[in-house]
Amino acid sequence: MPDFTDNLRPSQPDGPTTLGRERQQSNIATEELGQYLLGSDGFLERQARILPIIEQEPLFSKEQQQNLSRPERFKLGVARAKLLRRMKDTHKWSYLEYQMAEYLVDDVSPYFLHMEMFITTIREQASEEQQAYWLPLIESWKIIGAYAQTELGHGSNVRGLELEARWDSRTKEFVLHSPTLTASKWWNGSLGRLANHAIVVAQLLLPDPSSLDQYISHGPHPFIVQVRDMKTHQPLNGIVVGDIGPKYGYITMDNAYMLFDQFRIPHTAMLSRYSKVDPKTGTYTKPEQPALIYGSLTYVRSNMVHRARLVLARAATVAVRYSSVRRQFQDRDGDKKGPEMSVLDYPTVQIRILPLLATTFALHYTGLAMQAVYKKARRDIEKGDFRSLAHMHSMSSGLKSLCTILAADGIETCRRAMGGHGFGGGSGLIQVNNDYLSKPTVEGDNWMITQQVAAYVIKRMTAAVKSPDTAGVDETDARFKEFIRNKRRPGSEKQTYDILNSDFHIVKSFELRATAMAYEAYEQRVIKERNWNSLLIQLHKLSRAQSESIIVATFFDALSNDKALSEPIKTVLWDCYRLFALYIFRTNAVSQADLNSLASRVQELMARIRPHAVKLVDSWMIPDYLLDSALGRYDGHVYEDLFNRAHRLNPLNRITFNPNYWEDEIVKGSGHNGRGILSKL
Amino acid sequence: MPDFTDNLRPSQPDGPTTLGRERQQSNIATEELGQYLLGSDGFLERQARILPIIEQEPLFSKEQQQNLSRPERFKLGVARAKLLRRMKDTHKWSYLEYQMAEYLVDDVSPYFLHMEMFITTIREQASEEQQAYWLPLIESWKIIGAYAQTELGHGSNVRGLELEARWDSRTKEFVLHSPTLTASKWWNGSLGRLANHAIVVAQLLLPDPSSLDQYISHGPHPFIVQVRDMKTHQPLNGIVVGDIGPKYGYITMDNAYMLFDQFRIPHTAMLSRYSKVDPKTGTYTKPEQPALIYGSLTYVRSNMVHRARLVLARAATVAVRYSSVRRQFQDRDGDKKGPEMSVLDYPTVQIRILPLLATTFALHYTGLAMQAVYKKARRDIEKGDFRSLAHMHSMSSGLKSLCTILAADGIETCRRAMGGHGFGGGSGLIQVNNDYLSKPTVEGDNWMITQQVAAYVIKRMTAAVKSPDTAGVDETDARFKEFIRNKRRPGSEKQTYDILNSDFHIVKSFELRATAMAYEAYEQRVIKERNWNSLLIQLHKLSRAQSESIIVATFFDALSNDKALSEPIKTVLWDCYRLFALYIFRTNAVSQADLNSLASRVQELMARIRPHAVKLVDSWMIPDYLLDSALGRYDGHVYEDLFNRAHRLNPLNRITFNPNYWEDEIVKGSGHNGRGILSKL
Repeated sequence: MPDFTDNLRPSQPDGPTTLGRERQQSNIATEELGQYLLGSDGFLERQARILPIIEQEPLFSKEQQQNLSRPERFKLGVARAKLLRRMKDTHKWSYLEYQMAEYLVDDVSPYFLHMEMFITTIREQASEEQQAYWLPLIESWKIIGAYAQTELGHGSNVRGLELEARWDSRTKEFVLHSPTLTASKWWNGSLGRLANHAIVVAQLLLPDPSSLDQYISHGPHPFIVQVRDMKTHQPLNGIVVGDIGPKYGYITMDNAYMLFDQFRIPHTAMLSRYSKVDPKTGTYTKPEQPALIYGSLTYVRSNMVHRARLVLARAATVAVRYSSVRRQFQDRDGDKKGPEMSVLDYPTVQIRILPLLATTFALHYTGLAMQAVYKKARRDIEKGDFRSLAHMHSMSSGLKSLCTILAADGIETCRRAMGGHGFGGGSGLIQVNNDYLSKPTVEGDNWMITQQVAAYVIKRMTAAVKSPDTAGVDETDARFKEFIRNKRRPGSEKQTYDILNSDFHIVKSFELRATAMAYEAYEQRVIKERNWNSLLIQLHKLSRAQSESIIVATFFDALSNDKALSEPIKTVLWDCYRLFALYIFRTNAVSQADLNSLASRVQELMARIRPHAVKLVDSWMIPDYLLDSALGRYDGHVYEDLFNRAHRLNPLNRITFNPNYWEDEIVKGSGHNGRGILSKL
Repeated sequence: MPDFTDNLRPSQPDGPTTLGRERQQSNIATEELGQYLLGSDGFLERQARILPIIEQEPLFSKEQQQNLSRPERFKLGVARAKLLRRMKDTHKWSYLEYQMAEYLVDDVSPYFLHMEMFITTIREQASEEQQAYWLPLIESWKIIGAYAQTELGHGSNVRGLELEARWDSRTKEFVLHSPTLTASKWWNGSLGRLANHAIVVAQLLLPDPSSLDQYISHGPHPFIVQVRDMKTHQPLNGIVVGDIGPKYGYITMDNAYMLFDQFRIPHTAMLSRYSKVDPKTGTYTKPEQPALIYGSLTYVRSNMVHRARLVLARAATVAVRYSSVRRQFQDRDGDKKGPEMSVLDYPTVQIRILPLLATTFALHYTGLAMQAVYKKARRDIEKGDFRSLAHMHSMSSGLKSLCTILAADGIETCRRAMGGHGFGGGSGLIQVNNDYLSKPTVEGDNWMITQQVAAYVIKRMTAAVKSPDTAGVDETDARFKEFIRNKRRPGSEKQTYDILNSDFHIVKSFELRATAMAYEAYEQRVIKERNWNSLLIQLHKLSRAQSESIIVATFFDALSNDKALSEPIKTVLWDCYRLFALYIFRTNAVSQADLNSLASRVQELMARIRPHAVKLVDSWMIPDYLLDSALGRYDGHVYEDLFNRAHRLNPLNRITFNPNYWEDEIVKGSGHNGRGILSKL
């Protein structure tokens, strides 16, 4: 319905004018930087090709999805996911193209675990016969699978899982049984309403050879289990399974609970690439490398490290664009008649947003490095060489912990830096924030898994201490040995680095700190034999220092070795490197004087990056359709979009309420009282 | 439908057993501590009396509210709010009793602004005649009002508001007009769908006496305006008003947008206790104290400071109870056969939760102090004495900023410390977290308003510098002067305090830091005449240091002066004081040696508080109905409750889905394809 607001425009200078000026004042070539960041594997080309196909499909419109109830939103999620999968067939999309479409639609797919954990586990843990049987069914989506490990009572402590898989030597079957309520599987995505199969991790119980009515647990093992009828989609007899209910995010995911009552599965259900039970004798064959059982976990962790950059880039894009467009107050010491200042010109806004903008690039290089290490380790493992397994496991644990916390906290910091409108649905950050907050917890809690890094590092230091004068077997070993040799020389502990002026010294300083903390932890644990749990806070910090050192060194190496980037991109990225490193370093500074000089250096770097901020976020090339943000629109029509969402799209405004408290009626003229809503409760 | 899960129990030791032991091992008298904290104004007695009345009303059941869409959830919010108001009549509740009922139901009331800002503004800003006319209508809820200040383009910069109220001397009316889209009112609670009246803040435009076709703006002023028809509840002609749509939290609040098209209001609409326009001459009378116009803002800020304690106590209650019940891993260096450890026994869990438990008490004393200062200042102002206004304004700004950030970050830290289940709806923290995240932004953004503290402190320091040798006019002045005198004496800057061993030295150390930062800011701004904006980060830290100093000193004074508390409550509260102060102090430590000794002192204090943790949160007496948390239940039936919510209450489990992607059908057997959902989009 037309009204007088149709003719109103925002006050000047408006968003498009402001963003136009921002883009004019920076000579960064966003196309070049975008290609550099995302061009190598064809990401940008895919995005450009698939975006218009997605945008024209009404089912993928994001306009009303925030107004749906959980059940309706889940139905929409299933409808979209099925359509996406059909489009893969229709358009003959590769898996990468299909993933691009999913990324743009931005629903956590209720089929996510089918392709992420279910198929990966079969590929990594199933025997060749098992793979031959299952992979075609999985790849064609004839069956839908999930991964059921975590239980109501146990997540972190996998060895404490309660679900039992008892070998019945008479029938040659395993009997899955939940002895307690806490043995219920819990959180298992795609399983609550959708999957008909699942990898189920259970304690393998085999008869004790010395006393056959006793059973011995051989620890948790994965089994492939059909859980729902292929025709009726009802749970099979002896299985109770369902969705666990509303959560912070993941509204389109059916995280499951599942219990078994003496449920029998055949011998072939046990994934037997590494561990086996002889069906004739009930004899157990151990895996050569017990850590292999966690292979798919490492895969997911390294994916999280890689994906953190684009999540944070999304929040930074919205925050940088909106805080350029948003103006508030004239300069207190300047022209009182001029336009108000862009809030991004306030140091108190810069200090929240610009270090995060720099972090997007730090995460980028680390993500690439993590992918490379993962791929190489997998190749080695396939060849039977397990030497890189421990390093990869430690690196992926430490970086998963650090990168997901940087991104999760970063999204929220961006949101808050946008003031009131950051709290509104037009920010485009509500769903991504709610969804992403799962990441610090899933696949190994961020505080818990840092112990794995610490244990690895202490082991490496213990080895280095044994022969400090021999050559290092790798970079870490060499650095540890150098540190130990230096400790013998008096005065060498006073070594300091000029982090304000040398980019290389920044790396050395992070490495020295990580190494010194590794040595300290080694001393406490190995020499003084301190209780492990009493050291946990220190070990957490050690892991963080190690991972920070990796990120900083990776960022430095990438820029040092680059020969392709033109100016001023390269200079700005070096400034981002410095800002990222020094901003993190603030928490490590040892004296007030250090802190003061770091603070002014940080403020100086921010002033240098500030003019390029809009173009830097533009370079991440995140399309408006994905941002779904009035505040972060490429064209700057912030206020028109916010108003459109409120005035034209909000369904609540179609309802007239009766405000008189003494009348029972809620919707004006309906005559219906509030108790009508009770039927929905 | 009964099934085999009905007979399953959690593994042992279960929640009730664990919490029973926790309560047995601490000899804190929770009744006594509860009365001490919340007994003074009858809060606990009211809670005990009103809780059963609320719990038995089906409309107040929280079981299904997370499954509703925004429109349905809003309807439920309106229905509950109207019922609550009717119950006030039926039960003859006082306003405090009515507030207790609202607090327990825990919806942000869509009528909240009517009683919080609308009536307060009339009481503070309206003339006596205006009050006589409006207050009976407001108090009886015959009219429903809101407070419309913030606009689409302006929040923090109130002077930048664009809505105009132009005086028409011919008709003796004001003409409200929105010249731009950004002039639209925005965020104004209770106004989107419910209110029929509003306080509207607009630029007062009066004819220029020297040129009558020109207008001069006298800045923003409040007007009382009818916005909707009392019969049809439709917006009056010339007004466009509606709800702005989905937000992060506040799902039951109808935050508004509102624009005016040459909308005429009578001369009596301008609230004229302090500012007046002579209807005959159009002459303007300025308020004696321009700051008075922000009076209701100060009221709301000091309320937020007071309310922070119970919000954080709620999160701490859930986190402490659940992390006692949750067990994960045996002690790595201990008995491998014993039960797994309560996760609250891990230092990495303690360091996240126990300082926040200590913070609840810090917020408690500060909240009381803030209330006392506000009440005294209001009494003075009513008597025409404005001397305490500036201090109250600064204190409420600084503490609003600090206390709401401590509580908001604290809720999220508690949530994350609970691992996976902290992400689930059973945590009971989703709605309170989403709602509370508005607090760091509303009524003055937490980063922005710290400038008001800094400006006040610099002014005080400037005054102290002028006559450092005279007696201080108050505590702050005396402290500032002592600092300035000490600066003259060589060596005195090396003054250090024994914060590890003296509770009083902790206070002195916080005060010295705040004073030194005040002097530094004075030097930069007044002596060196540095640009204000370039100092913003420093000024923000100054404000934080000031507010931290107030909280610590208030905590110390309260415990020092107490004569009522019995042991061991008093000892434990002193430990909480130390933990709170030292935990905050960590970020201020100046050397690595300081940091190390602080870290071990903090760990030692946590070990002392740990045995009392469950009883300390019990003492906040937060009923299960309010917590609405499976994890935080008083009785510890965590896993049974989580399972009940998933298996018996989740409506999604009543829907069977069709998982086959090649079939269009979404709900199995319905034959309806996904596009049916489009009608909801």
